[in-house]
Parts: sequence; structure tokens; C-alpha cells
Amino acid sequence: MTLFDFDLVATDPTTSARRGSFKTAHGTVETPLFMPVGTRATVKGVTTPQLHELGAQVLLSNTYHLFLRPGSDIVREAGGLHSFMNWDRAILTDSGGFQIFSLADTLKLSDDGVEFRSILDGSKHFWTPEENMRVQQDLGADIAMQLDQCPPYPAEKEFVATAVRRSADWAARCKAAHSREDQALFGIVQGGVFEDLRLESVSRLTELDLPGYGIGGYSVGEPHELMLESLGPVCDAMPANKPRYLMGVGNPTTILQAIGLGVDMFDCVLPTRTARMGTAFSSEGRMNLKNAKYARDFGPLDVACTCPVCTQYSRAYLRHLVSMKEMLASILLSVHNLHFLLDLTARARVAIEEQRYGGFLADWLASPGAADY
Amino acid sequence: MTLFDFDLVATDPTTSARRGSFKTAHGTVETPLFMPVGTRATVKGVTTPQLHELGAQVLLSNTYHLFLRPGSDIVREAGGLHSFMNWDRAILTDSGGFQIFSLADTLKLSDDGVEFRSILDGSKHFWTPEENMRVQQDLGADIAMQLDQCPPYPAEKEFVATAVRRSADWAARCKAAHSREDQALFGIVQGGVFEDLRLESVSRLTELDLPGYGIGGYSVGEPHELMLESLGPVCDAMPANKPRYLMGVGNPTTILQAIGLGVDMFDCVLPTRTARMGTAFSSEGRMNLKNAKYARDFGPLDVACTCPVCTQYSRAYLRHLVSMKEMLASILLSVHNLHFLLDLTARARVAIEEQRYGGFLADWLASPGAADY
Repeated sequence: MTLFDFDLVATDPTTSARRGSFKTAHGTVETPLFMPVGTRATVKGVTTPQLHELGAQVLLSNTYHLFLRPGSDIVREAGGLHSFMNWDRAILTDSGGFQIFSLADTLKLSDDGVEFRSILDGSKHFWTPEENMRVQQDLGADIAMQLDQCPPYPAEKEFVATAVRRSADWAARCKAAHSREDQALFGIVQGGVFEDLRLESVSRLTELDLPGYGIGGYSVGEPHELMLESLGPVCDAMPANKPRYLMGVGNPTTILQAIGLGVDMFDCVLPTRTARMGTAFSSEGRMNLKNAKYARDFGPLDVACTCPVCTQYSRAYLRHLVSMKEMLASILLSVHNLHFLLDLTARARVAIEEQRYGGFLADWLASPGAADY
Repeated sequence: MTLFDFDLVATDPTTSARRGSFKTAHGTVETPLFMPVGTRATVKGVTTPQLHELGAQVLLSNTYHLFLRPGSDIVREAGGLHSFMNWDRAILTDSGGFQIFSLADTLKLSDDGVEFRSILDGSKHFWTPEENMRVQQDLGADIAMQLDQCPPYPAEKEFVATAVRRSADWAARCKAAHSREDQALFGIVQGGVFEDLRLESVSRLTELDLPGYGIGGYSVGEPHELMLESLGPVCDAMPANKPRYLMGVGNPTTILQAIGLGVDMFDCVLPTRTARMGTAFSSEGRMNLKNAKYARDFGPLDVACTCPVCTQYSRAYLRHLVSMKEMLASILLSVHNLHFLLDLTARARVAIEEQRYGGFLADWLASPGAADY
């Protein structure tokens, strides 16, 4: 098995769920999986040894943010992201396309590339697909994503169609400019909620025979059902022998539904961001630890959970930390929430291997935890 | 060896440094030692398993803060502080006297007790020595401190004398009210910078034959030299068979100097507070990681340090985290700074055992790290 070849270990008989794996220079990645997000080369509040212990296989980091600070040259001089942030398993960098289009108030877009201003100091930058590849090769993640144009929701069909075609052209230019053999370049399927545009995007990208494909432009404000409706046909049209990565999706229920439609990879800031707001995933649904009802609740955060937080700390203690805005509240809830998604996807992998993913998904959807999406 | 009996393991031939130990229901405490501070039942940014690994023997927590939130009744119902905060080694609670006198803008003081207002919601509370003992017995630390009156600096001698006598009276009332056999009650020597008052305080407290004594009212703004001048005679006057705890002192140089004068225990928020400001203790003196000179410095934080931060992360990475105000900056620098003091005091213990503390102290004072006080 050479680097990045996707090995289909098992498929589920009643859903489109699949159990796969692929090799990177930093370990084999078992799919389906959730990837914790470390925007600025750090998963907020969690150390890399803790992430190791939680069983994280791949961390995601953001090219846009790292390009601005500390700069991809400093990361390259440090020996790349793995060495810079002390993480010896796999890393994926997004291209920054999503951030450029969602954070920047002024940008100049052409077929050639995109000019944007830094959110930090207003400085002007111009990214072509080629320049973006240079930056991502400097960062040195195991997986790089193509530069793409991510349309907002809602958007006119004509606008989305242009973005699909431009993104496909850029994918080809990224491929031509990409040279690191220890780094996989993934394309990104766009097309918003328009199924025909999604399928056109899949078809254009499949021609490039890239080692994997992201599915972008979802989870940008569209109704949840609209995404799930079009996601199935999109997955069905994508090549079976390449991993499929649904970008930016991280709530437990949508992850499990998307796995049932054939998605292999997920990332989201949700577990750590909600943790910093004092909320926890649980088998009983999302919990707001600010709630006074937990003040004298000396039971574990989630009785069904085996994480280091649930086995060592009480709801009453966590409630105290959250109320007092103690840093440890964010740390412990982040660890728990990450464990929750890493454990859920690990159990999904076993269910697929054992050919019972349909039942596993149905059980989840009938459980109180499913309210969480 | 029964609980809290102070065993003098070794004394240094050329200084007054001593190497001792005493037993608690949560492990034997080896002195001299530094105790990390967890004001609200959490050492800011550091988990209890991390503190375990760093070799912390005793954590300090604050009665004033815990009394206000979550309330000592909730901590008692949780099974005490050890269970509440998930720490199975020893804990010390201060009495809250220092906080009442330094934080409260309005308070009514009499020989009977002190009325103060909560810094959180302005609510009014009245503490007698007896009430304070009830609260600390609810919290259930291994060591409780007497309620005392801590005068500010500067203060008139007459004012300090009154505080000394009142504190000694309160020590006797605390002793009479204290009943937990698994908890040691320590007295607190006051007297400001007036040596005769300090000696009067020692003499009054020694009569009570308590299992240990704090030395309070230092490090409240007086010149550093004034403290060191009077500390020697105070230590000499204190009973040799009881541990001596210099409250609120935490910079490396003063700790080592005070050990040389015969002090056994220290606590301070300095390592974690300075960490949150982006500064690190080091063998080269205090480092401000915000400094641009570290941007491309890929060496360890402190080459002489063996902590998990110095062995895994570079100055350039820490500088990036500090600049971006990432939570991980505070976490990693707190771990390093705590390790620095825990390691320094561990090495001091070995130096005393090996009868070479005088040289150890002289080496430190001649090193670049000694600028840090």
C-alpha cells in the first residue's frame, strides 16, 4: 500500500457507510474519522500529548491564519508544522479559501487568483493557486486542500456555477504546481445546494484523479435538510476509491448521518468552541454547565462516557469552574467534547466492520443525544 | 511517626537550611517545598494529573474565594476539596484573612471577629475565628491556617502590635474550635517589619504548641531587604520541631534565600500569573516571550530544563502562541514555571541532604537566574 492509496476495508450492507484506511508519512488514517481543528497550530486549550491520548489521528490547521502569523516561512524553518506544533501524527491544512471568502470584507477575485486583506493588520495579499500551493508545501501537512472559491448561502445559481468552474480550473493548476510526494493534494467539490452543479464539480475533479476530495460549501447557513438531501447523490457520484471529506461539519448527529451516506472524514471547531462557552456534548444531548441545577450534582458529566473528565470530575465541579470563568473549564470541556466525537466515530468504525451501521445509526437517532445537531 | 509530626531529616552545616518531612492523610510532605496555588480549587490552566506529574506535593486553595463560590457546604457535600477538585495528595487552605484585609474596601473589625463584603456580589459576612474553623473543616484540607489580621505595609507600630495580639488571641480560639484530627491547624506569625513584634508573635503562638506555623504579613510591599533582615531572627526564634511556612513568597531567589534562613514551605501565584502574561522563569532569568527576538528561535525555552514544555516545544512556537493570545501559551508556560520552582526546591532538598546547601545557594546567587526575584 503506497502513500495515500485508499483501502476499502468494509462496506455496510444497509447504508452507504464505508470503513477505509490510507497511509501517510505520519501514520495510517482509519476512516471514518473526526479531525480536531487547531486553527493557529494549536487545538485551543488542549496539549498535543492530550490529543494523542484521546486518539486523534489527524489534526487540521488553517493555512490562512498560519500564513498571516507566524508566516509559512517560519513554520518551514521550524521543520514544518509537525515539528513546530509537536504533533507526530497526520496533519491536514485547508487552503484558506473558506477564510478568505468568509472573513475578508474587501477582496478582488479573478480567474487568476484572489487579492485579500489580512484581518490582523489590513495588509494586502494576492493568492494564485500556485502561490497557495507554495504556502501549503512550506507548512508541510500530510494533506493539502486545493485553493477554491466557497460561495455563501444563499447565492444565485449563476454565481455558484462560476465558482464551481473556477474552483475546478484552480484544482488543475494546484495539481500542476504541487510537487511534494509526502503530501496529498485533495480537490474540493463545490456547487452549493444545486445538485446538478455539485455533480458537474465532482465530474470535473474526478478527471484530475486526485488522492482524495473534500466536499465544501456546506454548513454555511443552509437548512440542515437541504445539505443532507444533496449529500447522498454527491457521495454516490464521487469515486469509490478515494476518501471523501465533508468540510466543517462537527455535530454528532450530522456526522453519523453523513457517514451513512458514504462520507469518510470530518472536521469542525464545534467541540472546542462550545466547550469554551461552557457546553458539553453528552449521551443526553447538549448540556449547559452554567445551569444552576448542576450546582449540587456530584455525578459525572456523562455517565455513558469513559473520558478522563467524566471519570475524574463532577458536574458540580465543572459548573463551579464554568461559573467562575476558570481556564480549566474550557480545558476539561474541550477534552470531553473531543473525546465524545473521537469515540463516536471510533464506534462507528466498529459498527461498519461488523456490518451493523444501519442499526447503530438508528439507535443514535432514537437516543436523547440525537437532539444535538 | 503520627500525622503532622515534623521529622528533621538533615540540617545544613553552613546555613540554617533544613530537610524535613511530615505525614498527612494524603501522603508524606518532603520539605522544603513549593506549593502551587489553586485559588478557586483549580491551579489556573493546569490539570491535576499534570500537577501530579510535575511532582507537586501540596496544593493551596483559598478559603475566602471558596467560601463565596461554590460555598463550603457544596465542597463538604462533594466529600471535601480533595474529591471536589480531584487531587489525592495534600491540600492547604489559607484562612482568608489575607484576602479579607487586602480585597475588601469596607470591613468592620473587632476583637470578636471581622465583618466583610463579598467582592462578587457585595453580600455581608461575619467571620469569627470559630466560624472560620467551621468553614475550613468543611473544606477539609490537610492543613488549615488560623484566622489572622494581616496589616498592610507601611503601618504604624501600634497598629501592627494590636494586630499581633489580636491574631494570637484568635489563634487560641481557632485551636479551641478546631476538632478534625485529620487536619493540622497552623498558627500565623505577624509583626510586619518590627522584629520585636515578630518575636512577641512567635512567643505567643509557640505557647499554643500548634503542629506548624505560617509567617504572614511579608511580601505585602515592603522592601525585599527588610523582609530578609527580620526573617532570620524570626526563624531562629521559632520552634525547631515544627514546619515554618513563609506565606505568599514565590520568586526563585527569595525562596532559596529563605530556605537558607530555615524556612520549609512556600506558596505563590507568581509562576501561573506570570505565565499568563507570557513570561517564563529560566536559568537565564525571566524571559518575556512576546519579544520579537524569539520569532525564529527554534531552541528550547530553557536549555537547562527537563520539563515537558522545554523538551517538546520551541521558543518560536511559544512566542507564536503568546502573540496570538492562545490559551495553550498560558497552559504551557504555567507548566514550565511550576516545574521550575518544584524542580528548584527538589534540588534544594538534595543539596541539604548532601550538606552542601551553602554552595548551592551561592551558585544560584552568582547565576543569571538570580536576577529573578
